[in-house]
Amino acid sequence: MSIQSVTWSPTGAVRILDQRLLPETALYRDLENADAVGEAIRTLQVRGAPLIGIVAAMGLVADLRDARTVPRDAFLARLDVTAERLGATRPTAVNLRWALQRMTNAAQRTRGDSGAVWERLHAEATAIWEEDRAMCRRIGEAGVALLPDGANVLTHCNAGALATGGIGTALAPVYLAHETGRRVHVFVDETRPVLQGSRLTAWELGQAGVPCTLIADGVAGSLMRAARIDLVLVGADRIARNGDFANKIGTYGLAVLARHHGVPLYCCAPSSTIDTAIPDGDAIPIEERSADEVRLIAGRPIAPAGVATFNPAFDVTPARYVSSYLTDRGAVQPPFQPVP
Amino acid sequence: MSIQSVTWSPTGAVRILDQRLLPETALYRDLENADAVGEAIRTLQVRGAPLIGIVAAMGLVADLRDARTVPRDAFLARLDVTAERLGATRPTAVNLRWALQRMTNAAQRTRGDSGAVWERLHAEATAIWEEDRAMCRRIGEAGVALLPDGANVLTHCNAGALATGGIGTALAPVYLAHETGRRVHVFVDETRPVLQGSRLTAWELGQAGVPCTLIADGVAGSLMRAARIDLVLVGADRIARNGDFANKIGTYGLAVLARHHGVPLYCCAPSSTIDTAIPDGDAIPIEERSADEVRLIAGRPIAPAGVATFNPAFDVTPARYVSSYLTDRGAVQPPFQPVP
Repeated sequence: MSIQSVTWSPTGAVRILDQRLLPETALYRDLENADAVGEAIRTLQVRGAPLIGIVAAMGLVADLRDARTVPRDAFLARLDVTAERLGATRPTAVNLRWALQRMTNAAQRTRGDSGAVWERLHAEATAIWEEDRAMCRRIGEAGVALLPDGANVLTHCNAGALATGGIGTALAPVYLAHETGRRVHVFVDETRPVLQGSRLTAWELGQAGVPCTLIADGVAGSLMRAARIDLVLVGADRIARNGDFANKIGTYGLAVLARHHGVPLYCCAPSSTIDTAIPDGDAIPIEERSADEVRLIAGRPIAPAGVATFNPAFDVTPARYVSSYLTDRGAVQPPFQPVP
Repeated sequence: MSIQSVTWSPTGAVRILDQRLLPETALYRDLENADAVGEAIRTLQVRGAPLIGIVAAMGLVADLRDARTVPRDAFLARLDVTAERLGATRPTAVNLRWALQRMTNAAQRTRGDSGAVWERLHAEATAIWEEDRAMCRRIGEAGVALLPDGANVLTHCNAGALATGGIGTALAPVYLAHETGRRVHVFVDETRPVLQGSRLTAWELGQAGVPCTLIADGVAGSLMRAARIDLVLVGADRIARNGDFANKIGTYGLAVLARHHGVPLYCCAPSSTIDTAIPDGDAIPIEERSADEVRLIAGRPIAPAGVATFNPAFDVTPARYVSSYLTDRGAVQPPFQPVP
């Protein structure tokens, strides 16, 4: 069983697992309002494109609990302002704005007073979460046949249960294969600078009993050269119409290595990650993060004070390096069309 | 000016920079005797194959300062015992035993009393050091023309002044270009798991005033895709007869990326690194190091306790990925022949 990264608290707050404290401590936090939710997203207490969208949607509901008796116009105005604010917390993830847009659309389409709109928002946020869980399983089903008994998978960053409301995206085929009793082993890139691989992916695979081996990011090439990797499974933060996709920094390098060694690479993501408004990867904005992510580990300097850094959170992998896109609509190929 | 990683103290001790404390503290230690020198090598206060050999040779001289009036036989006996002990501190470092052998040979060939033999040893250790400094400069001269004004270099691990008695191997062309007033900028891979890039390379470049930018190891691919890297300079721990070479884990991945993007990669090393007894890279033994290098940083867990790791210290890059070998004998190409 994979872990559960988000749920409603008994009082209607958003209960999250604070991912900053993993793997040492599994601390659940109840986010009572939009400030707490914004802070949680901005400070990476929750991360992973699908999970951020779910938490933001649920966060609107938790925040507006105390506004159920205000006039409808005031309720909708506050919803818009709050959604706007939450949408600005992470620039690259498309799911965040997608989920928030879906919430504001649902509110506008709902008749009645604030109480009725809030009930609709609660149902909509829960639906976004439930659909995400179902979506994860469908991604798993799209990929599970690619993992024969004894398969060795390489993954980067965390696109697992901790990145979604369900069993993850890149790890979904792994969890499904493991569920059915197939032997599957995962090489986990530690994924500097934020170490999502060592802190999160190795942790959640361990919790689920899936065998894994943690490696420094520089090891992948020599493993491929030694034919010890059967396939690469990665997530995506945004997929352009032509199939170019943004994912954690280092994904592009892995894709080149995979291609060079004849190892297939699969991009695993909900179809909501596909942004058909964006023609290709050049149009995907790349967030650059703080130098201290590279200069410090656990608050301790590991580099000279004040050294310049270049710390992009993501890179773009062109579509030609991708064997297939595993989505909730099955294994698909670009160019992608807008969903009517 | 690059930093100086070893020198004689005014009283004839071996003055080293304790590399364990970098980049937070630049502490110079005077190693007064062979015990202190052995401890410094064993505990990685000094590292880098050329530097270890120099420090060991100078350590013999410092240790025997108080024996210059004992009978010759007693002096030579103590020299042998001490050299044997120092030679066992890092069993795999070839330069260490090479330098110690050269010292004991010099002593045996020298006539006269202990004072005369000691003077000869002092001259020999200084010569080993001076030859290393000259070797570094010749590597730099072999490479400096490859760095036009405004060049962007990528390097991995530390093959700089901190690894040698001089201006380094992979960084030697950079220091020479900088000396002549050419603008040169270095992207420094942090080099997980031991972080020699962030702790050592970024520090020594900063001390010398060479502009550099520290990056996580996963960033190199996207920098090459964006045409922001002009060339890659790396060191080598051992070079086989056919040109395959072992270097810090991650070098092979960089080499594949460089080839894929048409970026030249140069392997920079003293010609003593070429082991003509080894036909190709498959015959180079690869040391696997402690899991805790991957699981912990600064003593703090960054991964689940007990998680399996694969932590090879080196990988092998086949010769076909190397544009040229920059050595103290100039830019050379395999196959390499034994030196008569």
